[in-house]
Amino acid sequence: MAARQECVGILAGGGPLPGQVAEAAVAEGLSVFIIAFQDFAEPAVVERWPHAYVRLAAAGKILSELRTHGCRDIVLIGPVRRPSLRDLRPDVEGARILTRLGRALFAGDDGLLGALVRILGEEGFRVRGAHEFLSHALGRAEAMGVVVPDDMARADIARGMDVLRVLGRLDIGQGCVVQAGVVLAVEAMEGTDSMLERAGLCRQPGAGGVLVKLCKPGQERRADMPTIGPRTITNAGRAGLVGIAFEAGGTLFTDLPACIAAADRAGLFLFGVEVDGASRELAEKPAL
Amino acid sequence: MAARQECVGILAGGGPLPGQVAEAAVAEGLSVFIIAFQDFAEPAVVERWPHAYVRLAAAGKILSELRTHGCRDIVLIGPVRRPSLRDLRPDVEGARILTRLGRALFAGDDGLLGALVRILGEEGFRVRGAHEFLSHALGRAEAMGVVVPDDMARADIARGMDVLRVLGRLDIGQGCVVQAGVVLAVEAMEGTDSMLERAGLCRQPGAGGVLVKLCKPGQERRADMPTIGPRTITNAGRAGLVGIAFEAGGTLFTDLPACIAAADRAGLFLFGVEVDGASRELAEKPAL
Repeated sequence: MAARQECVGILAGGGPLPGQVAEAAVAEGLSVFIIAFQDFAEPAVVERWPHAYVRLAAAGKILSELRTHGCRDIVLIGPVRRPSLRDLRPDVEGARILTRLGRALFAGDDGLLGALVRILGEEGFRVRGAHEFLSHALGRAEAMGVVVPDDMARADIARGMDVLRVLGRLDIGQGCVVQAGVVLAVEAMEGTDSMLERAGLCRQPGAGGVLVKLCKPGQERRADMPTIGPRTITNAGRAGLVGIAFEAGGTLFTDLPACIAAADRAGLFLFGVEVDGASRELAEKPAL
Repeated sequence: MAARQECVGILAGGGPLPGQVAEAAVAEGLSVFIIAFQDFAEPAVVERWPHAYVRLAAAGKILSELRTHGCRDIVLIGPVRRPSLRDLRPDVEGARILTRLGRALFAGDDGLLGALVRILGEEGFRVRGAHEFLSHALGRAEAMGVVVPDDMARADIARGMDVLRVLGRLDIGQGCVVQAGVVLAVEAMEGTDSMLERAGLCRQPGAGGVLVKLCKPGQERRADMPTIGPRTITNAGRAGLVGIAFEAGGTLFTDLPACIAAADRAGLFLFGVEVDGASRELAEKPAL
């Protein structure tokens, strides 16, 4: 069944992005094969494409499926929860890879995902970033909708970036909420939606409140790119925030037009900031 | 009504500690007068002592009560929520003080409390730390109960201290939860109990999990000392943690014997770490 044209292997977690990567790859004249992680990948998304459901820890099956379908390039996309070691039940190859991951299993996300990308490389695969296929879904610099951050919001964005720069060095979270200079909430393992709910509860009276989401400095962008979807916009609005700042060129939007429309309706800004050389290459215009 | 012996003014927020400060001051031969912050101070605690209920922003009334009762030394103790500017309704003196607080109103907690202590000093008062009266309620170095942290817990404590040192410089929170090297949750404005609940939800399978609570480096200890009570112990146990680490000599226990008993029953350690010169002066024996 190995396809003649080049085949991209897509290791798919949840959400719509694995399907979008497949669509973009096929539009480029490539073929695709999806490794759909059981309990995470969404059937409606992956079943439109050649696919196989595989447990996260069945590394032997994953590698053999990828090789059978002639996939040399692979893309990791869509959220999976950090697996429980008890529930992993690795196959033989999986156990071997767990051993190679070793201490990285107990490191932060960056350590774990970085080690995984390294091991896949050693196995002869080339891990490509989802953003290489989804450049149209990348957040752009400056305001993307009709709302523009005011001076107070810009100051809060700057403070949030400072906070995340420092947190990122500790491999903690990718987000925080800042209002009038006060850091309301910091994201660790709980995820952005949970942080937004909490930020709404401890929001201070008065104006403002900004969600800032950035890549961590050492973050493996090929395995773990910050993602914003329509639900992020809804939750930011519910928390009473005035907008969302993200890394231009370093943030994937699961549905960019829908996100912009939702932000415009909710009166929130969507503001891409440039962070460093890496994102500047990807971003389309200058920012902050 | 000014008392002949020296009178300590206690500005009382919630919880039992204002009563304990009063008791300790009276045991030292001083008299006390409690400014009970309306909506925060607990009637059962403050009504055993000479007191007046005052709104948080009624600075004119606060200062005149303190002067009427001849209080030169004052103690700020017990939690108050950061007030809503809308709800403050300051009196004339309060408006004047709000103006003097100025930008500090919009700074982090450290900035705000530091400015408040400075202004009270300018008004002729001497702000004393609650810990000067409650030395028996200060957490001590090393394990205080029967449970002792194992090597993994000690490594998690060290990681949590690193994280808090960095966060503290940004004036964010006083706590985090670390399990097997992974930072599960970071405390910002939501408070320790809310963070513990979340940490329980995103706890990783496997052993371990430690709550680490420290003073921020620039924290105004005379206005805002980390506090641990029996509820902290209960919530840490519910979150599946193995123990609590805190700054020896820099943490107030609302009921130290009850906390130690609760920790022993729940199988949690209570472990005091030494952090810097300041805490070393207060701590009773060497730590980590």
